Amino acid sequence: MIPTITAFEASPDRGQGLARDMRVRWALEEAGQPYEVRLVSFKAMKEPAHRARHPFGQIPTYEEGDLVLFESGAIVFHIAQRHAGLLPDEPNARARAITWMFAALNTVEPPILELQTAKFAEGDKPWAGERLQLIKDRIRHRLGELAVRLGDAEWLDGAFSAGDLMMVHALQRLKPSGVLDEFPSLAAYVARGMARPAYQRAFAAQLAVFTGQSATG
Amino acid sequence: MIPTITAFEASPDRGQGLARDMRVRWALEEAGQPYEVRLVSFKAMKEPAHRARHPFGQIPTYEEGDLVLFESGAIVFHIAQRHAGLLPDEPNARARAITWMFAALNTVEPPILELQTAKFAEGDKPWAGERLQLIKDRIRHRLGELAVRLGDAEWLDGAFSAGDLMMVHALQRLKPSGVLDEFPSLAAYVARGMARPAYQRAFAAQLAVFTGQSATG
Repeated sequence: MIPTITAFEASPDRGQGLARDMRVRWALEEAGQPYEVRLVSFKAMKEPAHRARHPFGQIPTYEEGDLVLFESGAIVFHIAQRHAGLLPDEPNARARAITWMFAALNTVEPPILELQTAKFAEGDKPWAGERLQLIKDRIRHRLGELAVRLGDAEWLDGAFSAGDLMMVHALQRLKPSGVLDEFPSLAAYVARGMARPAYQRAFAAQLAVFTGQSATG
Repeated sequence: MIPTITAFEASPDRGQGLARDMRVRWALEEAGQPYEVRLVSFKAMKEPAHRARHPFGQIPTYEEGDLVLFESGAIVFHIAQRHAGLLPDEPNARARAITWMFAALNTVEPPILELQTAKFAEGDKPWAGERLQLIKDRIRHRLGELAVRLGDAEWLDGAFSAGDLMMVHALQRLKPSGVLDEFPSLAAYVARGMARPAYQRAFAAQLAVFTGQSATG
């Protein structure tokens, strides 16, 4: 059964691939699985029909027969469990790759998202400039630790995994801030992720939503 | 093989059970599994021997033979995969319970942790008071959505699962702020979690680290 995912009808990042449907598209492409997309407006996202699928009124969701999932991490994990290409078979290596999924989402991503939240929700406050520096320092601290662990390896633990997929996408959001480029090995790591054919196909698919609508609208 | 987890040698919350080893202890108690604990000082947490286990220099870690894991979410998931009592067997219900683990860690917990970060890292800034209110509003927004989904159910999706375990522990940190009590159904949900015998055993074990040291030191 071909799953259906949801994505923004009007991409807030103009198709830069930062929305979290990108993670799910990328995982499905790595797994070689077809999928369908239902676009959701900002208004529809907050209405009961969508909230039945996603209690927090966000995207992405994942529907496959009777199964409805939300949370990009949970969806990518679901795909990775059911198809080859995203998690190693050897049990210990598999547990470590899953650890990197959680680390990307719970340790590395929160300060990165806080940078964005601070800009959007507090950008007009008198403290905005000083606070952005504090948040960037928090991010630098985490990235320094991540760079030490990555060392000169290609991926975080052996072959590319769903852990790398989540980490690359979490880090990607930092690019405009310049902070990622302060860590050349991590910038190269993100570039390696983005160069993967599956990433490229997923990126093109989400960009087509934006360019298609720009052309017609 | 009995696993070894790490916990703070000097509990920053004086044994209130907010440290993340509590999640792992609770999961092991739900699963009926014995475990050993190695206490780690703040200094040792940042040294190479511990960083080899945890690249971000934190607790908890989990060691079981050759396997070394970090991130409370990943460790709880590992335990839940291998023992009964934390994830349903039916595949769709299992995927939904895992979704709640990710939702607890990636959607509900980050603003709650930001409240704490704001107090500790920015408590002396002139903006601290105004910002704490903004963060509390962000938390209220998420909790309102969570309360709608929970409704009058006992747990988030059928029987108690690792998703509830992570959610209850993430919400618990809110208690001193008073925000949790603004959502009576969620406060009752947290109380149900904390009343579980496995929670009680885990809580007593982590409290004993603090009281034992208080008595001798």
